[in-house]
Amino acid sequence: MSGSTFGKLFAVTNFGESHGPAIGCVIDGCPPGLALSEADMQPDLDRRKPGTSRHVTQRQEDDRVEILSGVFEGKTTGAPICLLIRNTDQRSKDYGNILDTFRPGHADYTYWMKYGIRDPRGGGRSSARLTAPMVAAGAVAKKWLADQFGTQVRGRMSAVGELEIGFEDWAHVPNNPFFAAVADVTELEAYMDALRKAGDSCGARIHVEATGVPVGLGAPLYDRLDADIAYAMMGINAVKGVEIGAGFASVAQRGSQHGDEMSAAGFASNNAGGVLGGISTGQPVTVNIAIKPTSSIRTPKASITRSGEATTVETFGRHDPCVGIRATPIAEAMLALVLMDHALLHRAQCADVKVDTPDVAARQQDA
Amino acid sequence: MSGSTFGKLFAVTNFGESHGPAIGCVIDGCPPGLALSEADMQPDLDRRKPGTSRHVTQRQEDDRVEILSGVFEGKTTGAPICLLIRNTDQRSKDYGNILDTFRPGHADYTYWMKYGIRDPRGGGRSSARLTAPMVAAGAVAKKWLADQFGTQVRGRMSAVGELEIGFEDWAHVPNNPFFAAVADVTELEAYMDALRKAGDSCGARIHVEATGVPVGLGAPLYDRLDADIAYAMMGINAVKGVEIGAGFASVAQRGSQHGDEMSAAGFASNNAGGVLGGISTGQPVTVNIAIKPTSSIRTPKASITRSGEATTVETFGRHDPCVGIRATPIAEAMLALVLMDHALLHRAQCADVKVDTPDVAARQQDA
Amino acid sequence: MSGSTFGKLFAVTNFGESHGPAIGCVIDGCPPGLALSEADMQPDLDRRKPGTSRHVTQRQEDDRVEILSGVFEGKTTGAPICLLIRNTDQRSKDYGNILDTFRPGHADYTYWMKYGIRDPRGGGRSSARLTAPMVAAGAVAKKWLADQFGTQVRGRMSAVGELEIGFEDWAHVPNNPFFAAVADVTELEAYMDALRKAGDSCGARIHVEATGVPVGLGAPLYDRLDADIAYAMMGINAVKGVEIGAGFASVAQRGSQHGDEMSAAGFASNNAGGVLGGISTGQPVTVNIAIKPTSSIRTPKASITRSGEATTVETFGRHDPCVGIRATPIAEAMLALVLMDHALLHRAQCADVKVDTPDVAARQQDA
Amino acid sequence: MSGSTFGKLFAVTNFGESHGPAIGCVIDGCPPGLALSEADMQPDLDRRKPGTSRHVTQRQEDDRVEILSGVFEGKTTGAPICLLIRNTDQRSKDYGNILDTFRPGHADYTYWMKYGIRDPRGGGRSSARLTAPMVAAGAVAKKWLADQFGTQVRGRMSAVGELEIGFEDWAHVPNNPFFAAVADVTELEAYMDALRKAGDSCGARIHVEATGVPVGLGAPLYDRLDADIAYAMMGINAVKGVEIGAGFASVAQRGSQHGDEMSAAGFASNNAGGVLGGISTGQPVTVNIAIKPTSSIRTPKASITRSGEATTVETFGRHDPCVGIRATPIAEAMLALVLMDHALLHRAQCADVKVDTPDVAARQQDA
Repeated sequence: MSGSTFGKLFAVTNFGESHGPAIGCVIDGCPPGLALSEADMQPDLDRRKPGTSRHVTQRQEDDRVEILSGVFEGKTTGAPICLLIRNTDQRSKDYGNILDTFRPGHADYTYWMKYGIRDPRGGGRSSARLTAPMVAAGAVAKKWLADQFGTQVRGRMSAVGELEIGFEDWAHVPNNPFFAAVADVTELEAYMDALRKAGDSCGARIHVEATGVPVGLGAPLYDRLDADIAYAMMGINAVKGVEIGAGFASVAQRGSQHGDEMSAAGFASNNAGGVLGGISTGQPVTVNIAIKPTSSIRTPKASITRSGEATTVETFGRHDPCVGIRATPIAEAMLALVLMDHALLHRAQCADVKVDTPDVAARQQDA
Repeated sequence: MSGSTFGKLFAVTNFGESHGPAIGCVIDGCPPGLALSEADMQPDLDRRKPGTSRHVTQRQEDDRVEILSGVFEGKTTGAPICLLIRNTDQRSKDYGNILDTFRPGHADYTYWMKYGIRDPRGGGRSSARLTAPMVAAGAVAKKWLADQFGTQVRGRMSAVGELEIGFEDWAHVPNNPFFAAVADVTELEAYMDALRKAGDSCGARIHVEATGVPVGLGAPLYDRLDADIAYAMMGINAVKGVEIGAGFASVAQRGSQHGDEMSAAGFASNNAGGVLGGISTGQPVTVNIAIKPTSSIRTPKASITRSGEATTVETFGRHDPCVGIRATPIAEAMLALVLMDHALLHRAQCADVKVDTPDVAARQQDA
Repeated sequence: MSGSTFGKLFAVTNFGESHGPAIGCVIDGCPPGLALSEADMQPDLDRRKPGTSRHVTQRQEDDRVEILSGVFEGKTTGAPICLLIRNTDQRSKDYGNILDTFRPGHADYTYWMKYGIRDPRGGGRSSARLTAPMVAAGAVAKKWLADQFGTQVRGRMSAVGELEIGFEDWAHVPNNPFFAAVADVTELEAYMDALRKAGDSCGARIHVEATGVPVGLGAPLYDRLDADIAYAMMGINAVKGVEIGAGFASVAQRGSQHGDEMSAAGFASNNAGGVLGGISTGQPVTVNIAIKPTSSIRTPKASITRSGEATTVETFGRHDPCVGIRATPIAEAMLALVLMDHALLHRAQCADVKVDTPDVAARQQDA
Repeated sequence: MSGSTFGKLFAVTNFGESHGPAIGCVIDGCPPGLALSEADMQPDLDRRKPGTSRHVTQRQEDDRVEILSGVFEGKTTGAPICLLIRNTDQRSKDYGNILDTFRPGHADYTYWMKYGIRDPRGGGRSSARLTAPMVAAGAVAKKWLADQFGTQVRGRMSAVGELEIGFEDWAHVPNNPFFAAVADVTELEAYMDALRKAGDSCGARIHVEATGVPVGLGAPLYDRLDADIAYAMMGINAVKGVEIGAGFASVAQRGSQHGDEMSAAGFASNNAGGVLGGISTGQPVTVNIAIKPTSSIRTPKASITRSGEATTVETFGRHDPCVGIRATPIAEAMLALVLMDHALLHRAQCADVKVDTPDVAARQQDA
């Protein structure tokens, strides 16, 4: 629990609403001396932003990030870094018909019941737009981790609706709007077009992994790396499930099968997903997340008004037929933020530790 | 992230090792005036403890909890409550052959590489024994939540290995060693006996849910109820996956299907699993967790020694052929702790909120 | 410890540098439904800002605060509130001669040694300018506390240099640049004019107090109200001492004299300063702080360069001959923030507590 | 704010009541590999404990500390360390006459009003006995800091009542019951004997300092080293004032006088008290604290009962005529805990910083 702050030593405090003047975050605890400019963050923001293909919401936002503090002559100073992203294309009128009703599957009802007040425009604080500042912060973390450890964080869509999407090559991911690691996305496009015309939506499954993760990040209880990853991922809008390594498939496995054997040349398998006992093994950290279908659809759904009377809700205007399509850069960012936080935490407690045992995962990676 | 402390306002600091003098926790932030004695916690501890059936580890521990502080004349004072559980049946010699090796699938390697030192006896801090203090603390939370809101937290095993276990009635759960909600567990027993004889292990899936949860617990970012639940569950030893509501099944659902419709009489479904936008709806909070198969098995596995040489590891002595068998009370406890923490957090910020809209989930529950 | 965040449940994350694009803060945890606009904060910001008299730094900043989030239709929503204050009158060239030297009594040396990099312009993050966002946040806290409890927070200068300043009436405080509670400030003005002409500076002592504080805020260990007040005050730039109630005079008191006697009509004295055992008594919370003399003076001081060579440092340009002159609104803000945080914390744990014993301090105040 | 936990990365969670079964703490975040046994902590506990001279409370407690976790084969493992101290000499009957009244100057009234329940025996949680676990934890911090940096933390009494106590030599401190750095304490003893016979009490002032503190500990806002020191000290029972360096004397100083000049050979003075801009300079960190006179005295004081009726309170039984006499080891421990926490925090963020500028305070110390 943390208020609006994600992380402890690399702490990102998120603020803003979908249709407010601006959204942003404050990154606190960034090590000094890291070269940083807006150009380091803009690419990942561009990957996330709306309006990039017909398959995602058509809101046109540049998502231009601006650094307001914490950087001097192109380097981080150790001071908190405020990142600001102005909202420019709010169309509040598109949400006029839901001001006094609660859209099923959305946060409207829960925000209202908790706070007694809510900003309904564009979903207010429940909007996936609030992931943009995290993507910007995640880019900073990715940069530092790459410099420090050669860490690389990559994600891809592994399923959309009932369609499984295989893995051919990471090189395909930037070449299609789905972040799919396959060359041919014709089937996916047809599937999405049909869904959009029907006014409905589907879920998605994202696979995200980090390589070049040093061994030793995390702790037994309660700074567990896997627990923090689960927290980060379940905290992404629309996520309903998280698994690490063999995940739910572990249930039917045998111990003789699941436990990853070791040799001086590395691990024989990675059912652990790179985390054992809450601590990184040095193997790739592999995570899958389940994203539910968007609740803003053109199919009418039964609901109630603020006074409790029956009504129906139908969304017009812009929406994502599959919010999972844009989730990949967000999942990457969240994984990077967790790893960054843990890297700082590890060195706080264990900077003096020296161990003679070979780092077998590192050997395996170099090989 | 939180060191060894779970929670923010109902904070539980866990300490101890499997073969040390004692294990325990300090509960901080408990409201004053709650009637509390060891008898409130012992039943759940008894449900969790080893040696209760042939299907679980045969270590004989009474797990008698002792309250060392924070209670006066049978009531909590608001001061921190230290709970102590003495270890009495440590058999360190059973682990003699793994002092210089790393058991695949265990935390031995990661602890060693992180800390440069580890207590190998009984798994040290990686042992599931360290869930006992959380179960004790969870009992306190369960009590308070029941008093305050009528909350009830219940879990059951929904799969063991490849066997799906259905739901007949909660009343069956206390009558078998599996926490299964079915009358006849003959098939399960045969399955487990065969596994134990083979010296192997399997995973499990646990379903845990809370009813009588008030609407409004949680926050948009980052005190999300679902994110904290994921953190709590993934933080349980051997858990590799967490899902809420429709979970991974959401991927293939349609928005027209997934979004839970509302009427003045309640919700029509609960794909959300009781959480929307990070905040409780008042519907049952439903969670599934995947538990991997135990890595301590009698089948030899390849590993390395501390100096990096090849070796094999085989576990003798006591172990759980399926750690999932005892996970149910642990999962219940963790869910209760998350809800407790959130109940206090909610009233910190929103104690003055008054809303006229009917609490439709509450109506539904009463009906 | 908290990174750049002050507080736990009413948490204020501060960002910005003196000569960067902007300074500001994010307020997290504000209860929803509080009427809030820039007009609620601007008066206190105006009291704090530079350029208001010849006795303070002549930098001309409007310190106009802008609310970027967390408020909808004039009311707080419970979402984080970002407050932004643009810097408009940076004159970086005035600091050109100290880029490679360390000004004695300033943070130049320590920032450089800690971070290996520093923003020297206007003192960077060490500037008292960074108190402006706290003053804005403090205004929000003052408002809520006044609404909830009738709390009033007021400060005044009780000494400047060797001159003691007595107390005549709070009504005088707004009428002079010193926040002195006396009608005639001629002597103070002459003292300050002489000091400025001499190119030197002096310290100050500020008295700040809160009335209408409910009994019960704080805790025995470690959420003590007095400890948090000390933390807040010592965290203000240039503060070197904090005392509560009788403070350092307690040393020479007797127990028969110090312990504040009680009757049904109230307390007979207030040596405790409104805090006993870490918890508020309901009596006025009274605090004194010692502020050191400004280190930016026109008298040359010996120092070293970054390479360790001897040099002298002399400040030209704008500076405060007595930073204590503007500290009063800052001290008020910090006290309000501590009380706000504690009010929320108290109700998290103790919302259900009912006590029949009369609140004697409240009676005393009403009388 | 932190519940019952002091510190963030070297976090000490305190539990227990004066007359409960035991008191203790959990130290979380201790680096692994530190040699640690009870013998490292017992000496400081013996310095603190009651019954060591006629000038302090006559309760006879051995204060034997027991390590329950976190240490294996004589070295810390990185796991949380639970320290337990059993209470053996509780004499609850001595407090019988104050069960329904509130002792002026004590926490009785505030605890009652906050919690609606209190453990009155021996002051419950308000007892200075709860400093014992902090002294034990402080000994661990002292050890690590000494190993890492050569840090030394020492305290002495600098005033008792109206009597100023000078400084002759640290070597005298262990040789008298006052922790006074003077050879001849005859006057002090006479003063204390007279006070005890009169049934009254007086305050004290303690000076505590740390040498061998590395430069760079702390941060601008809000992990300021001086703010955390103030928080730690004001959090000690009976403390009403804290000052660092020149403290309250700064008020009357001139900037030309206060700012500590620098040369390549070191600093010319230490008005800063070792902290500038919230960060350590490497110079000795010097702190003074004011301790109020004990409120448990044999002089009757007016008070009220729980129902609000007038009564008088007079303490019989054991008490400290000057609690400040035993405060020195406590103040040392708290300063060590703050420095330890900051050392870990500093390396989390700044482990990679390399600066060519000479560490002038270190040079000065070596010289």
